Amino acid sequence: MTNEYFKLLAEIPAKEIFPGFLGRMIHTQHLTIAYWDVTAGSEVPLHHHIHEQMATVLEGEFELEVNGISQVLLPGMVAVIASNIPHRGMAITNCKLMDVFTPVREDYKNR
Amino acid sequence: MTNEYFKLLAEIPAKEIFPGFLGRMIHTQHLTIAYWDVTAGSEVPLHHHIHEQMATVLEGEFELEVNGISQVLLPGMVAVIASNIPHRGMAITNCKLMDVFTPVREDYKNR
Repeated sequence: MTNEYFKLLAEIPAKEIFPGFLGRMIHTQHLTIAYWDVTAGSEVPLHHHIHEQMATVLEGEFELEVNGISQVLLPGMVAVIASNIPHRGMAITNCKLMDVFTPVREDYKNR
Repeated sequence: MTNEYFKLLAEIPAKEIFPGFLGRMIHTQHLTIAYWDVTAGSEVPLHHHIHEQMATVLEGEFELEVNGISQVLLPGMVAVIASNIPHRGMAITNCKLMDVFTPVREDYKNR
């Protein structure tokens, strides 16, 4: 049923952007949304990017460190990562995460 | 625990932006995320705005019409609404929705 206005996530091919991080992405003019299935124990190393990011845990537990401050994220919690702020993360359990980025993650389009 | 980087949605006061639509919002430099608790039968009338929007149903069923095309959204589906595209919606059941907007919804800050 995927068309210009409505997307079924299951129909979007998943990309393994980091080991253990399978992402299904939707890119618009100014936004990228990434829905991640993450395997317990998988890590994203410390990094930063110009994109603003908001991260939500939909299922599971994910430990996120933002600018040196660490927090275990559970459903109902949101992380706000401003442009160029260093961050890293680790899945404590299998997780479903949702990240929102602006501007678009052009670097994810060709991965 | 809400601080600069981490937000607990339950600690954010809800605003009733439309009747039956209780939203908890986070605004950053360029993004607004709104987490909605919606009562079955509640409607958003046809409207449009300059902001790009992506809408995700986290729980329940929500009927959304975008540019004249109607779709019942379930969890796992995402609606993409480009700038100034007319849209309206109605909660078929009680729902939890998440909307992402860019630029920031300045009009929601003072509601």
